[in-house]
Amino acid sequence: MTDAAPLNPALAATFAPPVMEARRWLAGATFPPDRPLINVSQAAPVDPPPLALRQAMADAALNRPEAHLYGPVLGNPDLRAAVAADFSRSYGGAVDPAQVAITQGCNQAFCAAIATLAQAGDQVILPTPWYFNHKMWLDMQGIAALPLACGGDLLPDPERAAEMIGPRCRAIVLVTPNNPSGAEYPAELVARFFDLARRHGLALILDETYRDFDSRGGLPHDLLTRPGWDRTVIQLYSFSKAYRLTGHRVGALITAPGRMAQVEKFLDTVAISTSQLGQIGALWGMKHLRDWLAGERAEILARRDATVAAIRALPGWRVKSAGAYFAWVEHPLAESSADLARRMVADIGVLALPGTMFVPPDDPAGPRHLRIAFANIGADGIATLAERLRGLSG
Amino acid sequence: MTDAAPLNPALAATFAPPVMEARRWLAGATFPPDRPLINVSQAAPVDPPPLALRQAMADAALNRPEAHLYGPVLGNPDLRAAVAADFSRSYGGAVDPAQVAITQGCNQAFCAAIATLAQAGDQVILPTPWYFNHKMWLDMQGIAALPLACGGDLLPDPERAAEMIGPRCRAIVLVTPNNPSGAEYPAELVARFFDLARRHGLALILDETYRDFDSRGGLPHDLLTRPGWDRTVIQLYSFSKAYRLTGHRVGALITAPGRMAQVEKFLDTVAISTSQLGQIGALWGMKHLRDWLAGERAEILARRDATVAAIRALPGWRVKSAGAYFAWVEHPLAESSADLARRMVADIGVLALPGTMFVPPDDPAGPRHLRIAFANIGADGIATLAERLRGLSG
Repeated sequence: MTDAAPLNPALAATFAPPVMEARRWLAGATFPPDRPLINVSQAAPVDPPPLALRQAMADAALNRPEAHLYGPVLGNPDLRAAVAADFSRSYGGAVDPAQVAITQGCNQAFCAAIATLAQAGDQVILPTPWYFNHKMWLDMQGIAALPLACGGDLLPDPERAAEMIGPRCRAIVLVTPNNPSGAEYPAELVARFFDLARRHGLALILDETYRDFDSRGGLPHDLLTRPGWDRTVIQLYSFSKAYRLTGHRVGALITAPGRMAQVEKFLDTVAISTSQLGQIGALWGMKHLRDWLAGERAEILARRDATVAAIRALPGWRVKSAGAYFAWVEHPLAESSADLARRMVADIGVLALPGTMFVPPDDPAGPRHLRIAFANIGADGIATLAERLRGLSG
Repeated sequence: MTDAAPLNPALAATFAPPVMEARRWLAGATFPPDRPLINVSQAAPVDPPPLALRQAMADAALNRPEAHLYGPVLGNPDLRAAVAADFSRSYGGAVDPAQVAITQGCNQAFCAAIATLAQAGDQVILPTPWYFNHKMWLDMQGIAALPLACGGDLLPDPERAAEMIGPRCRAIVLVTPNNPSGAEYPAELVARFFDLARRHGLALILDETYRDFDSRGGLPHDLLTRPGWDRTVIQLYSFSKAYRLTGHRVGALITAPGRMAQVEKFLDTVAISTSQLGQIGALWGMKHLRDWLAGERAEILARRDATVAAIRALPGWRVKSAGAYFAWVEHPLAESSADLARRMVADIGVLALPGTMFVPPDDPAGPRHLRIAFANIGADGIATLAERLRGLSG
């Protein structure tokens, strides 16, 4: 129809949201009561937050007028201060509240970070497998994502990254613990990327959405202790996973106050401000749920171990990496994971995302792998999952 | 510092959020108890929603697990259906739930609409004075905003718009009732813009954030009754003003299902989903607050009349247009509104936004006008505002 309004070709060329696409595979599928669906597709808690947190939010909804009104664009001062104090403590550095912005979820923090750095025609280095929403934002903005293929250990190599840096390159993005691979990047590796980014005048975007489930003790990295770190580092965080607040959309971005003035422009335009009740819940969680969160972490680490053991016991299957909510798994079947993942819904009642959703079309790692988001299934579910995978016909 | 991460020049060149800038003028200012600040700068309710709505949200926070979890990217099906039914009824058309998306506020609906239409180098026609966040999004995206100067009646002229349409033009944006002028666009005028947009294969973006406070009876426009309207029209709406939900960030976008697949990509990447509690509150409001909203509208229309009368009585001041939350007022002082607005904070304890924030730098209308957001001050406040304006030294 020639009279129809136009389409932005960059958005039209961006792939559809993988999680929504996978959900559509469920349409028309039926799952008998004795074999219900096992959904290991999305990295999201399935239970609500603890009762005390829900009570705190309900109380605010009822009794705090400001819980219903616009807040400051960069977030509520009390939550910004709490994030600054928490990151100062956890990373051994000195983060000021003026270096913290609150966003409508961590995806939006990434969008804001990129908006301050790059425009159409620029380039950003993304290790692969990548987090698909990062790739989508770059695509729709006309920014080239340069894929940095990880090795067999699922770690990105700074020397290979160095070879990719040209005059239009603006940033390197690291997600640790990683989505989709679960890999936990060693502090020394993160430091090498910091040095590389600083040397070339790039930003190092560090997405630590899953940091609360890191299996290691100690600092995840020491970057925040370095002088002038905020000229290079843009640190991202999410409250969604730690406190089960996915439905409220609260994330954080940490960087230099000068860049924050740019972040403020972006957030004012796209968001105006972040949900007040979400911010109230996030602050309450940080103040009161530290012990509870430690228990959550222990449970998820136990699920990781169970998943790794169960899948390793399957003939031909290999766990290449596991951490946070995810295992990155090589399957032994002949078909591409893109076909396999759909067939698994019908044949064995399992919904998992294919590796092809996390890599460029020409990357051979995509068809060979699946992402298993194990965090939401308990020991029984993991055992059942492994049984069903074992029963997949080749 | 040569090692600092880069800045996106398009974002750097975008102006700072006007509302936040105006708030900063208050820093250091003191307001004696007998002359408190009158803040007519922001279009936002200052009171929370009615108790029953707050109770419904508190109940959901406590008892509905899904109120804390991710929802569908395009919004909750019940709210999408309610918006479709409401628009079908209010506009005499047939809007399907598949034509409705829920967004994190109406600003984000605008960003999503533009993202589906245009990329860097394209053009969009914005009547001036414009809503500054629209201009900011276009600027940061590298899309040229073509200013269509309104006449003395603050109405845009479709024939002048027609002359501005070139090969890179993608859309025309109308805000009615208008922010900042308050002008209510006649249905016939909206229809002429629809015909123009359709003839040229452009989108017509209709932002009706303030439609619940329109002073006129009947349909605001008849576009939704026309065959294939959704190939041209992208209708935007906000729940923030009607139900006092600014702190929850809930808006809506209405257009063709085909374009909705593009909207879904944008929202998945920038938002993942809209606040569940906000959506629950918005739905509750639509279902239960129709009578209450009618009372709100009557009160705001009374404030409009009082504001118009009070300012018209001031020597040299002219109300050029008034409606929704706003009066667009010509001042009689020699200085630019950009200076005057700052001086008003100190001299008379009034915070209003200068016209310069709503027009291109070279537009002579900017320095001569102020936007008065009267919706939040009652009859006493309006009388006091007029008194203080009268006392302004020239």
